[in-house]
Amino acid sequence: MTRNIFIIAFLITSTLFAQNTLSRIHVKGNNFVDDKGNTVVFRGLNTSDPHKLDNQGYWTLDYFKEMKNWGANLVRFPIHPPNWRERGHDAYFELLDKGIKWAEELEMHVIIDWHSIGNLRTEMYQSDIYDTTQKETFDFWRKIAVRYGNNTTVAFYEIFNEPTTYNHTLGTINWEQWVDINKEIMTIIRANGGKGVPLVAGFNWAYDLTPLKTNPLTIEGIAFVSHPYPQKREKPWEAKWDNDWGFIKETHPLILTEIGFCGPEDPGAHSPVISDESYGDAITNYCDQKGISYMIWVFDKEWAPRLFIDDDYTPSRHGKYFKKKLKSYKY
Amino acid sequence: MTRNIFIIAFLITSTLFAQNTLSRIHVKGNNFVDDKGNTVVFRGLNTSDPHKLDNQGYWTLDYFKEMKNWGANLVRFPIHPPNWRERGHDAYFELLDKGIKWAEELEMHVIIDWHSIGNLRTEMYQSDIYDTTQKETFDFWRKIAVRYGNNTTVAFYEIFNEPTTYNHTLGTINWEQWVDINKEIMTIIRANGGKGVPLVAGFNWAYDLTPLKTNPLTIEGIAFVSHPYPQKREKPWEAKWDNDWGFIKETHPLILTEIGFCGPEDPGAHSPVISDESYGDAITNYCDQKGISYMIWVFDKEWAPRLFIDDDYTPSRHGKYFKKKLKSYKY
Amino acid sequence: MTRNIFIIAFLITSTLFAQNTLSRIHVKGNNFVDDKGNTVVFRGLNTSDPHKLDNQGYWTLDYFKEMKNWGANLVRFPIHPPNWRERGHDAYFELLDKGIKWAEELEMHVIIDWHSIGNLRTEMYQSDIYDTTQKETFDFWRKIAVRYGNNTTVAFYEIFNEPTTYNHTLGTINWEQWVDINKEIMTIIRANGGKGVPLVAGFNWAYDLTPLKTNPLTIEGIAFVSHPYPQKREKPWEAKWDNDWGFIKETHPLILTEIGFCGPEDPGAHSPVISDESYGDAITNYCDQKGISYMIWVFDKEWAPRLFIDDDYTPSRHGKYFKKKLKSYKY
Ligand SMILES: [Mg+2]
Ligand SMILES: [Mg+2]
Ligand SMILES: [Mg+2]
Ligand SMILES: [Mg+2]
Ligand SMILES: [Mg+2]
Repeated sequence: MTRNIFIIAFLITSTLFAQNTLSRIHVKGNNFVDDKGNTVVFRGLNTSDPHKLDNQGYWTLDYFKEMKNWGANLVRFPIHPPNWRERGHDAYFELLDKGIKWAEELEMHVIIDWHSIGNLRTEMYQSDIYDTTQKETFDFWRKIAVRYGNNTTVAFYEIFNEPTTYNHTLGTINWEQWVDINKEIMTIIRANGGKGVPLVAGFNWAYDLTPLKTNPLTIEGIAFVSHPYPQKREKPWEAKWDNDWGFIKETHPLILTEIGFCGPEDPGAHSPVISDESYGDAITNYCDQKGISYMIWVFDKEWAPRLFIDDDYTPSRHGKYFKKKLKSYKY
Repeated sequence: MTRNIFIIAFLITSTLFAQNTLSRIHVKGNNFVDDKGNTVVFRGLNTSDPHKLDNQGYWTLDYFKEMKNWGANLVRFPIHPPNWRERGHDAYFELLDKGIKWAEELEMHVIIDWHSIGNLRTEMYQSDIYDTTQKETFDFWRKIAVRYGNNTTVAFYEIFNEPTTYNHTLGTINWEQWVDINKEIMTIIRANGGKGVPLVAGFNWAYDLTPLKTNPLTIEGIAFVSHPYPQKREKPWEAKWDNDWGFIKETHPLILTEIGFCGPEDPGAHSPVISDESYGDAITNYCDQKGISYMIWVFDKEWAPRLFIDDDYTPSRHGKYFKKKLKSYKY
Repeated sequence: MTRNIFIIAFLITSTLFAQNTLSRIHVKGNNFVDDKGNTVVFRGLNTSDPHKLDNQGYWTLDYFKEMKNWGANLVRFPIHPPNWRERGHDAYFELLDKGIKWAEELEMHVIIDWHSIGNLRTEMYQSDIYDTTQKETFDFWRKIAVRYGNNTTVAFYEIFNEPTTYNHTLGTINWEQWVDINKEIMTIIRANGGKGVPLVAGFNWAYDLTPLKTNPLTIEGIAFVSHPYPQKREKPWEAKWDNDWGFIKETHPLILTEIGFCGPEDPGAHSPVISDESYGDAITNYCDQKGISYMIWVFDKEWAPRLFIDDDYTPSRHGKYFKKKLKSYKY
């Protein structure tokens, strides 16, 4: 009989963000549109984990200004579950509040990304940094929706970064089971007032959307995700991309929330990200022709493929390519 | 190969409570009956959480004498899962042992109430004070059944205080899923020697029993619960109560384990408990006409709606109404 | 995008055990065979928990030499989940690494046994020392497969020591649900490179395999387990054993991973282990006639039925019987 406390917390939270300046992003047909109905295509940047950045002193307005300067109109915050637990929910929300405010001031929208990799059914993950449970995941999205549901800067909710059984090393999950989990989370998001666009990923580390061909997911206001790193397929890529995930853009909005490459000589180079500028050309041309949004991984000097190499944000080879590309768009 | 240890613990526990003085309460048709077959109707009081009361020095024989003095023949102990964990099972059981002994000395039966609010399927709750898991809930009822299964003072096991999806903010659960969870727990209670009456609640914070109309739950020896606080429906209430939960009394025993009201001026007043003495008249007349048992929330000076306002147990407006009412019954 | 770390860890681990000297044990028809196709029948000993033995200073080469001296060609390590957590996975693996190396040097194969007792569906257990979750169990087997999958000394993976609902005190589970859990775990083991033989147990504390008569489990390369302690059935045992678990040897390899007895006067004597040498004769004759492998519980001076009584490994009555028996085999 203390339901009122929860409601009061909700009202306070909502009020804090009543004065947003960015447009709410909507789904219209296979596009994202703003409040005026204009189609919006996003090209943006992945931060590293806000907890990691803050611990190192990089979660600053300056960092956000630099992302804006590189041409981003969208930034993605990959929240690793153990960091969410370690910092504590309230303290983590303070980080997010700051980042969202800076993004808003700089007119960049935000993706909240629950950055786990693995099998949410068996609760097995690629490594401990991705460890979570269904219970925690449900609660995370509830809290995100309560806190940012009316905040128009927080345009997207990326439900689960990279679903994979890792060749069954993480146990089994079928498409129907995965859809059920996503539906449950989307119900929770909407019921708690989340007005943003949920982003749904497929298996193979968020690469593969082919099950949607035979099992369409007909929920209003959602969009899909793929992470087509270069080594997921052999060149020439385009026909494979059409088949594996590009087809969904015929009916739904699509964001590639992680793309990028590094040369084999770059620090942290690993499959499936090793390639060169030809990948950059292919994926950006592909996206531009079809109006697919995309985000580069990762605006950090330590994680791979890194976009810059030092505290002056000096671009890496990878960074040079995408900084030039992102700055080339006229919105 | 150490099964014997468990059995020994069971035997010791059982022996401790061999000398009960109160009658076992049975289900007979749509009534509760004592060992002699006499129908018993309960009117009683909710304590606040024994852990909270003990921390404040109020878990005493004196407190129980006062409840008896107010006319209670049944007391309900709302055990909040985090308190169960924080105090530790053994220490919490010591509290319960004392409370049950005092209740027995004063000839009041006891309801053990697992005081969570929310969705036990998704393991999401109205607030952190209600947080638990299915695993913990199963274990709680196992331990309660082992310790108090033969204790005739412990008449009732209220499986889960208030089931609700809170308009899906706590995810989804359907009636079949809820029944399955209840059946699992009742199997555990019976298998561990729990001889009391399990109490089953429905959705909408334990208000709504209507799914039983089309899906009757035909298990021997159980009873149902509703929490018809005044603002759950508009006046006139009676026909709505008939439809929503009162109908079950035609076939099963029924206890309203939480009723009560406070004026809008009272501390902690919140929906759905705000009303006045007309609610008291309506609900007690309704129950008395149909032989429905009921319990008033809450015998505490801090929680709302409070029944008394100071350490002298001076009744609140709410308390004055129900103290007079409860004392009016001739058993 | 840090999958490479996991793969590197896998490669390092695999390399550590590249030089095994014992044959891989395979399933061929209803027998175990070595790399040359020779049928192998195992008679061995259960250690107590390696964590317990090490804490007491007994996890030594000397302990393993004594097991070899008693005639064991197989040793079983019962890993209790809380010990796995308390010591920490890395530290526990160091224990296992040592034990497996000693076993290998002494030409004894090893069973890794996840030593829980209870219901893995409801996650309720006979006592706290058996407490685990499905999530932890999946993770345990993943880690075991990654670390020892190529190690030919580690011949067997005993998925779950003793499944039981304990007369529903631990809730419900049906055979189909139990098989699904086992299949999930075997998928995880194989996917992570586990090349040993998974051992599947049935209900009634791993006694009963009768559901396999109507629901055969047709997975390549697995074997079955029973724990036919003397008091599971009344004498004469043989026809009952045929019916309850012996029948499986007609089609699959079978290991009795726990047998043993003690007299009623022995320390820790408890149902179902109380018997005498007539049980030893019956069970060993039964096994020898059918080529069934078996393991004696338990090579410890404190746990029951103990095989020795002091630090000189002086055999108990139980120990005298089985030391003589095991040493009588000519392999
Ligand atoms: Mg209540
Ligand atoms: Mg055993
Ligand atoms: Mg759980
Ligand atoms: Mg990634
Ligand atoms: Mg779990």
